[in-house]
Amino acid sequence: MTAHAQDDARHPPVALQLAALEAEPLAGTLKGLPAVAEGLPLRELGQLRLSLLAGDLPLPAAVLKASALSHNARWMREFTARAGVSLAPHGKTTMAPQLFQRQFDEGAWAMTAATAAHVRTYRRFGVPRVVLANQLVGKADLELVFRELKADPGFDFYLLVDSIAGLELLRQAVAEHGLTRPLQVLLEVGTTGGRSGVRTVEEGIALGRAIRGAGPAVALRGVEAFEGVYSGADTARVELGALTMIETVAELARAGCSEGWFAPGEVLLTAGGSAFFDMAAKTLAAVAAADTGHTMRVVLRSGCYLSHDSLQYERLQDRMRQRAGALWGDGPGLRNAIEVWAYVQSVPEPGRAICTAGRRDLSYDACLPQPLWWYRQGMHDAPQATPAEWSVTKLNDQHAYVDAASGPLPLRVGDLIAFGIGHPCTTFDKWPLLYTVDDDYRVLGGVRTFF
Amino acid sequence: MTAHAQDDARHPPVALQLAALEAEPLAGTLKGLPAVAEGLPLRELGQLRLSLLAGDLPLPAAVLKASALSHNARWMREFTARAGVSLAPHGKTTMAPQLFQRQFDEGAWAMTAATAAHVRTYRRFGVPRVVLANQLVGKADLELVFRELKADPGFDFYLLVDSIAGLELLRQAVAEHGLTRPLQVLLEVGTTGGRSGVRTVEEGIALGRAIRGAGPAVALRGVEAFEGVYSGADTARVELGALTMIETVAELARAGCSEGWFAPGEVLLTAGGSAFFDMAAKTLAAVAAADTGHTMRVVLRSGCYLSHDSLQYERLQDRMRQRAGALWGDGPGLRNAIEVWAYVQSVPEPGRAICTAGRRDLSYDACLPQPLWWYRQGMHDAPQATPAEWSVTKLNDQHAYVDAASGPLPLRVGDLIAFGIGHPCTTFDKWPLLYTVDDDYRVLGGVRTFF
Repeated sequence: MTAHAQDDARHPPVALQLAALEAEPLAGTLKGLPAVAEGLPLRELGQLRLSLLAGDLPLPAAVLKASALSHNARWMREFTARAGVSLAPHGKTTMAPQLFQRQFDEGAWAMTAATAAHVRTYRRFGVPRVVLANQLVGKADLELVFRELKADPGFDFYLLVDSIAGLELLRQAVAEHGLTRPLQVLLEVGTTGGRSGVRTVEEGIALGRAIRGAGPAVALRGVEAFEGVYSGADTARVELGALTMIETVAELARAGCSEGWFAPGEVLLTAGGSAFFDMAAKTLAAVAAADTGHTMRVVLRSGCYLSHDSLQYERLQDRMRQRAGALWGDGPGLRNAIEVWAYVQSVPEPGRAICTAGRRDLSYDACLPQPLWWYRQGMHDAPQATPAEWSVTKLNDQHAYVDAASGPLPLRVGDLIAFGIGHPCTTFDKWPLLYTVDDDYRVLGGVRTFF
Repeated sequence: MTAHAQDDARHPPVALQLAALEAEPLAGTLKGLPAVAEGLPLRELGQLRLSLLAGDLPLPAAVLKASALSHNARWMREFTARAGVSLAPHGKTTMAPQLFQRQFDEGAWAMTAATAAHVRTYRRFGVPRVVLANQLVGKADLELVFRELKADPGFDFYLLVDSIAGLELLRQAVAEHGLTRPLQVLLEVGTTGGRSGVRTVEEGIALGRAIRGAGPAVALRGVEAFEGVYSGADTARVELGALTMIETVAELARAGCSEGWFAPGEVLLTAGGSAFFDMAAKTLAAVAAADTGHTMRVVLRSGCYLSHDSLQYERLQDRMRQRAGALWGDGPGLRNAIEVWAYVQSVPEPGRAICTAGRRDLSYDACLPQPLWWYRQGMHDAPQATPAEWSVTKLNDQHAYVDAASGPLPLRVGDLIAFGIGHPCTTFDKWPLLYTVDDDYRVLGGVRTFF
């Protein structure tokens, strides 16, 4: 039997505590903030009607296209509805409570976190349900989480266990902190040569039995995997690896049902990062629909769908659409929302432009950024698509090298240039303030992040 | 004739405006901050006597060893005194006004900045003299800087010009903003295939003459290069390239003196990033000492010397010491001050430990981090040096993979592990709060950064 977001209509909508954030004056130490906006409450930023193209923002500046954000949020709601699954978006992508609110508005069931410090930040803004998709160790980290559990009996919290050693640490912590309700854990499935998580079904069964036998301090609530540890150009190998991890989640869930490892209540089956949420949805939804004697909830955890990107996830999306078939729905899918704008500061050689954004501003772990648009005030009515032969060949901390493969660049000192990125997580974490903009790059508001 | 820091004893010491920062309560959204420190004024953090080794900090956390910071600050003061040069440390490395103060306390002549937003942040904390080692373009960026110039006639500010186009933009900006004193510019020397800056001596001469002819709005105050655009394993080629850039600075300075490009007053010769400050000091000090009819000040701009690191600059230091000879002084030189500590959260295979720090916490642009120490509470009296065969083989956003080249790791879930990094700039920018610690890893205080 399946529980999914659509069953939750009876729950009141989640309203995060954003008032203080939105009232907070914008500090004059935020990069990308113009002089005119210093000291202004965040919520009044849109009233300035700042225009990126008119030069109203110091650059570099990071922008989120409001139209694409809205499209992506709605798209994911529709996708999860079709698939009959729930969504706990990974908040570590953006660490932006204002975007979390948007995700709850579009039906998110929970937020996913990676660290105890994330959990604390989420709770500060009132997130009612958190999946810590990670182990939790260390006195001070445990304290951050247990404090929240003790302060609010309604705080619905899940975390991962992948070893007897980790289980034992959690049992001790529950006792030391005097927690009066069980800690809800998910058994983490890994893969040989991968990150954390049990390596085999046999290890998983041993751990599942150990959790069942660990007494009332710890309640096993489901099975988890992050299949995104598989990545790279060898699509067949990567997909097989990811699918095998997802199928191991299913297998351990079935074993757990038949052996009675799970605490009473819903059983969570959770996997599905931003590259494989289609596979996780299909495979796990079929398991959840089977008759296991438990109500099962499938929870996807993509963090990147909201902003998407123009390089890494955009490339992966083509394949995802192929795999998903009818489940994908009509249309191409997610749209890139995130761009970083800079100035051309020097054209020291005809085929090279040096631009005012670098490693401090742009993702560079998955791939180098790519110029998307350029714009010259007084010459262009709107940003012009850059030729495919322009590329970023190098980043320094504060500079990007834009080169043309052949011939001179038409760029001049003072031109604006927009970069698309691959892997939004590592661009968001470089910006304490991003702008939401309309399709003409007028600033509608600001989004604060907490990294 | 040479001006250098030792001549500046008559100047009052620089006292930055740090009181508000030090009184600011620590927000409960700062990673690495324990529950007990939330809301505490920054300046009272040391009073908690937190112990990293006792588990008082949520991890990951970034620490600066106070003893190494002090050593490095003093070392650089002594080095520049021996070399007869001044220091304008690149503040973009740390973006930490508290560390800027320490640099001024040890005789820094100015701070170097990379962006207009940096200049604004520096000014907010009262930095009296700034070298913007970059071009400045864009309406809103110019406004940030010109506002400071107009508000304080005592603000001593320099920026780079590398083209006629850039010069023209600055001239227009001075007129539009009604600036009543000349904008002080430095002619930027580049290299073919490099970043910004003129490519040849001939281009430099043409630009120098153009600045002289540009009227009173712009005053040429010196010549600049960032020779650190040369890097890599081919030491001979890299050193030759860097040295050639530094010598081009000298050549253009001599040309400027003989052709009368420079405005009255001191002429600045500035180069010397963190990898080559010895070469810049030697070469440029000799030029400054020659009889050119101008008082010349050689300004080095290393940003990384204060924290140093354990991988990239530590490796480069060996060669720097060889090159510098007697100028280096006694002793090995700079010491690593920066470490990022994490927990072992999983040991899923005997030779692999997964740790709670990742791309969000550690530099990975120059090289992957390296485990330096490990520590088990109850077993170790002090952190143990890690065997050289342990390495970080991969980083995810929030995880590090520590692998042993052979045999099993002795690590267990809950052990502490310290990572050394290469390139401090890209670790500082991941931490809004770093801890200063004593040699036993007790927290002495906190350093806030503004990225």
